[in-house]
Amino acid sequence: MPLQPTLKTDVLSPHDLSLIDRYWRAANYLSVGQIYLLDNPLLKTPLAAEQVKPRLLGHWGTTPGLNFIYAHLNRIIKARDADVIYICGPGHGGPGIVANTYLEGSYSEIYPEIGEDEEGMRRLFKQFSFPGGIPSHVAAETPGSIHEGGELGYALVHAYGAAFDNPGLVVACVVGDGEAETGPLAAAWHSNKFLNPAHDGAVLPILHLNGYKIANPTVLARLPDEELQQLFSGYGYEPIFVEGSDPADMHQQMAAAFDYAFDHIAAIQAIARSQGDAVTRPRWPMIVLRSPKGWTGPKEVDGKKVEGFWRSHQVPVAECRKDAGHRQILEDWMRSYRPEELFDEKGGLIAELKALAPRGSRRMGANPHANGGQLRRELKLPDIRDHAVKVGRRGGEMVQSTKVLGGYLRDALTLNEASANFRIFGPDETESNRLGDVFAVTDRVWMADLEPYDEHLARRGRVMEVLSEHLCQGWLEGYLLTGRHGLFSCYEAFIHIVDSMFNQHAKWLKVSRGLEWRRPVSSLNYLLTSHVWRQDHNGFSHQDPGFVDLVANKTADVVRIYLPPDANTLLWAGDHCLKTYDRINVIVAGKQPEPQWLSMDEAIRHCEDGAGIWHWAGTEEPGFEPDVVMACAGDVPTMETLAAVDLLRQALPDLRIRVVNVVDLMTLQSPDQHPHGLPDALFNQLFTRDRPVIFAYHGYPYLIHRLTYKRTNHDNMHVHGFIDEGTTTTPFDMAVLNKIDRYHLALAAIERVPGLAARAKDTVDQMTAKLGEHKRYVCKHGEDMPEIQNWVWPYDKG
Amino acid sequence: MPLQPTLKTDVLSPHDLSLIDRYWRAANYLSVGQIYLLDNPLLKTPLAAEQVKPRLLGHWGTTPGLNFIYAHLNRIIKARDADVIYICGPGHGGPGIVANTYLEGSYSEIYPEIGEDEEGMRRLFKQFSFPGGIPSHVAAETPGSIHEGGELGYALVHAYGAAFDNPGLVVACVVGDGEAETGPLAAAWHSNKFLNPAHDGAVLPILHLNGYKIANPTVLARLPDEELQQLFSGYGYEPIFVEGSDPADMHQQMAAAFDYAFDHIAAIQAIARSQGDAVTRPRWPMIVLRSPKGWTGPKEVDGKKVEGFWRSHQVPVAECRKDAGHRQILEDWMRSYRPEELFDEKGGLIAELKALAPRGSRRMGANPHANGGQLRRELKLPDIRDHAVKVGRRGGEMVQSTKVLGGYLRDALTLNEASANFRIFGPDETESNRLGDVFAVTDRVWMADLEPYDEHLARRGRVMEVLSEHLCQGWLEGYLLTGRHGLFSCYEAFIHIVDSMFNQHAKWLKVSRGLEWRRPVSSLNYLLTSHVWRQDHNGFSHQDPGFVDLVANKTADVVRIYLPPDANTLLWAGDHCLKTYDRINVIVAGKQPEPQWLSMDEAIRHCEDGAGIWHWAGTEEPGFEPDVVMACAGDVPTMETLAAVDLLRQALPDLRIRVVNVVDLMTLQSPDQHPHGLPDALFNQLFTRDRPVIFAYHGYPYLIHRLTYKRTNHDNMHVHGFIDEGTTTTPFDMAVLNKIDRYHLALAAIERVPGLAARAKDTVDQMTAKLGEHKRYVCKHGEDMPEIQNWVWPYDKG
Repeated sequence: MPLQPTLKTDVLSPHDLSLIDRYWRAANYLSVGQIYLLDNPLLKTPLAAEQVKPRLLGHWGTTPGLNFIYAHLNRIIKARDADVIYICGPGHGGPGIVANTYLEGSYSEIYPEIGEDEEGMRRLFKQFSFPGGIPSHVAAETPGSIHEGGELGYALVHAYGAAFDNPGLVVACVVGDGEAETGPLAAAWHSNKFLNPAHDGAVLPILHLNGYKIANPTVLARLPDEELQQLFSGYGYEPIFVEGSDPADMHQQMAAAFDYAFDHIAAIQAIARSQGDAVTRPRWPMIVLRSPKGWTGPKEVDGKKVEGFWRSHQVPVAECRKDAGHRQILEDWMRSYRPEELFDEKGGLIAELKALAPRGSRRMGANPHANGGQLRRELKLPDIRDHAVKVGRRGGEMVQSTKVLGGYLRDALTLNEASANFRIFGPDETESNRLGDVFAVTDRVWMADLEPYDEHLARRGRVMEVLSEHLCQGWLEGYLLTGRHGLFSCYEAFIHIVDSMFNQHAKWLKVSRGLEWRRPVSSLNYLLTSHVWRQDHNGFSHQDPGFVDLVANKTADVVRIYLPPDANTLLWAGDHCLKTYDRINVIVAGKQPEPQWLSMDEAIRHCEDGAGIWHWAGTEEPGFEPDVVMACAGDVPTMETLAAVDLLRQALPDLRIRVVNVVDLMTLQSPDQHPHGLPDALFNQLFTRDRPVIFAYHGYPYLIHRLTYKRTNHDNMHVHGFIDEGTTTTPFDMAVLNKIDRYHLALAAIERVPGLAARAKDTVDQMTAKLGEHKRYVCKHGEDMPEIQNWVWPYDKG
Repeated sequence: MPLQPTLKTDVLSPHDLSLIDRYWRAANYLSVGQIYLLDNPLLKTPLAAEQVKPRLLGHWGTTPGLNFIYAHLNRIIKARDADVIYICGPGHGGPGIVANTYLEGSYSEIYPEIGEDEEGMRRLFKQFSFPGGIPSHVAAETPGSIHEGGELGYALVHAYGAAFDNPGLVVACVVGDGEAETGPLAAAWHSNKFLNPAHDGAVLPILHLNGYKIANPTVLARLPDEELQQLFSGYGYEPIFVEGSDPADMHQQMAAAFDYAFDHIAAIQAIARSQGDAVTRPRWPMIVLRSPKGWTGPKEVDGKKVEGFWRSHQVPVAECRKDAGHRQILEDWMRSYRPEELFDEKGGLIAELKALAPRGSRRMGANPHANGGQLRRELKLPDIRDHAVKVGRRGGEMVQSTKVLGGYLRDALTLNEASANFRIFGPDETESNRLGDVFAVTDRVWMADLEPYDEHLARRGRVMEVLSEHLCQGWLEGYLLTGRHGLFSCYEAFIHIVDSMFNQHAKWLKVSRGLEWRRPVSSLNYLLTSHVWRQDHNGFSHQDPGFVDLVANKTADVVRIYLPPDANTLLWAGDHCLKTYDRINVIVAGKQPEPQWLSMDEAIRHCEDGAGIWHWAGTEEPGFEPDVVMACAGDVPTMETLAAVDLLRQALPDLRIRVVNVVDLMTLQSPDQHPHGLPDALFNQLFTRDRPVIFAYHGYPYLIHRLTYKRTNHDNMHVHGFIDEGTTTTPFDMAVLNKIDRYHLALAAIERVPGLAARAKDTVDQMTAKLGEHKRYVCKHGEDMPEIQNWVWPYDKG
């Protein structure tokens, strides 16, 4: 196999070459200016100390390469009227993307105070990494971006998410060679097995072999081209190498590489589209750009190698205020771009350079795909009442809640099929999580080989499955940020794999909500199932309900957590979350058969309240405070709480019991901490001011303490939850191990109601004996006692 | 390039072939028995319904392949007296590894109640996935394992961690093709750029193309061999393909492939070792095993394809108690292995098969590397007093705490150089995190290309840097679990990338601590630096202190969190953590110049107490309770607290202030929740029973509420911490944005001391004005006001 396709060497005429080089120099000049200058943006006078920022912050090393790519993308967009967005993996090269959107005019349109003149340029420079200004990285504030790039690893997976169902779009994705060492990025190359050339857009990866990280070379940059060629061919791409440091030569190479890549993308798409659908998996082009780190910057500073080495990573020449010699290096460096050839007297980009940028929404800083809310259309959603479970007798029939949701999702997929703007993502778990009804109307996308006996696997489909939570999360983020809708269903324990991606998306939403020009995007919706209490096949490694603890740390406006106790409440939660925007919604619900409690009307009312008293379950008397509040959140805790109430009602018929169920966990927090927080008066009406609350909670018990610490009765909250006692055992034994089973809950109630323990000694002894009997039984028979398996809420005769 | 090396076809004589096939059948038989049978282990009578488990749990699909590999590894270990451990990526194939360790005798040595006879076999079967028995996955309970395999992605990185500094060891690592889709696994292939053939052992990856996940094919299994060959050549390996389903043919292929691989490993090592060190990076062999999922199991059940399809993933034929037809399929299946040719009447493996297993510690279930505590030697550690910072005047000089620790680590590396059992791991951040002094005595390991201008990059070294937190964490886990020591230094925000790996390691430790035969291993030590308060270059995306919230969820015995406020306390914490075992220690400390507070003697006393009153900072009078407690945890919060105390002392000289500093965060928790929890009486002595506590905490404030919710004075804890307000700004402005700066802390004290606000109105106005002045100043000048930058604790004239 030849190392790479033969490229033209004269794509650019001498004049065009000169123009594109000047455009690149302008971007480089503006990038350096942002890192260094407070004033004197056009260097009309020699650079004075006080014109240099007191704190020099930012990253130069990657920036000239990013600018180089941007300039060449501009060329090809203009030449072909191409629809392109730019994903900047090395997001710390923020000055580069800011500089380019400023040059093309999109920056000043969004931020008119940063005008296209000398004063605007001064402000552009000053604001960068400056208090009250803009962050150093590509971020929500940056026009044309859907990708922060602060935490590395997700550029390529975001790019693919943006390309799905966007057949006219080319997503140019710069992958830094540092980022390329991360796991999520290494897996993301295989996304090409899920991209359909007939119905999706294209991703053009540009691996930037910049050579160095903070203080090390990068692995890929220190491999021979032959090995890189094998690696990326093995990943299913056709790599095109662009290598060198001489600008003129590099411009010709890059122009030819882009021509080749865009030609090939067009050819791949034309073939697939002429056939009606993709028959085979194409070998998509990608570019490997090997250029010096800190290209065009100072070669050496204080006798040490800077350009082409890791010392150019951040600020290549420091202390330019105090050190006149360093300041001279800076000034010489900036003047080496010959600003007088780039900007006019007033600071505007000269006209023949300005003409190089695309126009209007073809500018990458103004492309609506990168401000997806502009393109977002509401989902058409079925009526949840059409999917409601009929609850004849409370707790009387066992239903798989997620299966009911699956039917709803099936209809949602049908309603939006024509819009092609809704996908379901999951790590090989759609069927396992009982959402399989969706396969009545769609398939899993699969561009690798197909076999005749495959089921629901096709070139086209709205379900995306790959055994990588990183890819599921990243694809969905890219899909949402470009204006579409989705749901991520995942085993509860393994959603921790994407903790950090969740963090970054929450940060993105927090910032973008504050930017008027960023239109709202659909919420990121998690359905966490196969949860901690029902890992019958898998045990301890699959038991972890702690993701919501992380979620609860985040800015209140952005996060919601729902714990529907049955199918109808789950329907409400799923439907509600799909209608929201600019949020992260977490729904935790089991997939195993479980008792159903609320009719659809009741479920809607209960969910809208977020938390409420289940009067039908308790034994309160009008005019009296209850003796004990049995609270619950989550499906298994709700069932065990009701079973505990049953035990208490039988043993202690005069005990006044209140049952409170919490669906929306954020109702527990104080209203000054979360918009869903119940007012204190209402909270006290539910949980009383002074009665013991036995709270059975789905996850780690500390979260309930943390959410309620400001509440009047918080000293009297006795929370039972997962305390890290897990293994492969029976469902009820898991509850017993963690003391969240009916016996422990009933015993806790007896212990906490003043004076009751003495009176109920026999009951206590019987329940304690039951726990022993249970343990002996399961260890002998391997299943739960019949009285546990067959327990039904006995007070509701339908 | 030829697709693969030419392999012999007649490695096994017909007799040897028959023997190894019978050994494999024995393992398969025992695997099926574990999933299905309660009794009648040798099938001496027709299988009765009640002899089948009531709940059928476990995973058959991957198991026959795992057994196949195990049998062939046994052959090669015996043939070459090789030192081999087995890492089982598809850990849900637990029955296979349990079956094999039982066959080789190591299982019964560790668990004598599971004897090598019929009764032992009955117990072996019953205990699997059974209450009171063993988990379904390979886990800490499984002899020979250092890898759980429940959460997929880490097999290969664990394998490399085990191989470092173990020159005699071959780590055979089975990578499932499901797992191979994950990010961490995709990145881990590049670990071969960090493995030195002269000084390290070898990793032999065995990619098991089993074909399917739960309900989907796998990506890699659906690629043509040519593309796989390119991919793994690109990753730097020489793939050897073993493909088919006919057992006899597959045995010959596998035997030849192992011969070839072990020959090549030996040759690579011999060359490097004869040269004294590795000169070039070798191309290590790997095996690609393509075999049917559920191999040798039922071909079809109820007319549906099972063998060679995803339906064989878990339990291929269900309901065998109730459904006699299914039970017959099960019985036929088990009898197809001809147990009468494998086990004698008493249930023992017949002698000529028993002779196939290696002996003693060469058995993979008894290899001491997989019970690393057996090999662990204590680290030799320098005296922290030799590295102490002299604190002439409290707060009077600015020191980079992590740099001081770097000097200590340098000496620790020197002391243990000969033992070759201590490494430092980090994602390209050792220098950035100011630990660069270690490079005086060692280098970064690098097996990719070297350039003459590289610095501290060499074929050999004790610092491992790669831009993947997953690889750092996984290598370290593998290194620790095989009996060595290490430290992982990481940017605080990005440690969330390995949240889930931390979870799984904590689970492993929790379980292994309860197993007498598992010897303690060294603790996993994190140094989290470049923390939330000093992300001057990076801003919001790099600001997240929430990892410790996750840590605090875990079993108390396993986790510790330290927040040293200065260099001497950091030295104590680092030294202490390196001496502990079977724990996960998290140290959070800044890398920027910061004031120093405690002499070494004071630091030792303070750290041993975990929390204490800083009498020199407060204004208490003997015999009086303080008016307010100013508490702090973390370096920046401590500095801001002392600055707040300074403001209060100047403005309100008669206010009785107590300063409490917390180093060991777990002292806050109640002693019944954590072994380090202070007794209530002592806690009350520090924090009072009723005085306001203004608590400046490094991370999310909720954690302090959660840890202290059982304490008497918890209603009076007013916690200031990170509330997700972040960006690129000055260090002091970051504190102000999150209200943890000196002014907000002092204002909070004034607000909370009864009656003080009215009396101190002028002070409140002045401080409020200062906050406004600050904001104006930083937005104009881009740096903090001189009075902030130059503030020094004024009460200690040293």
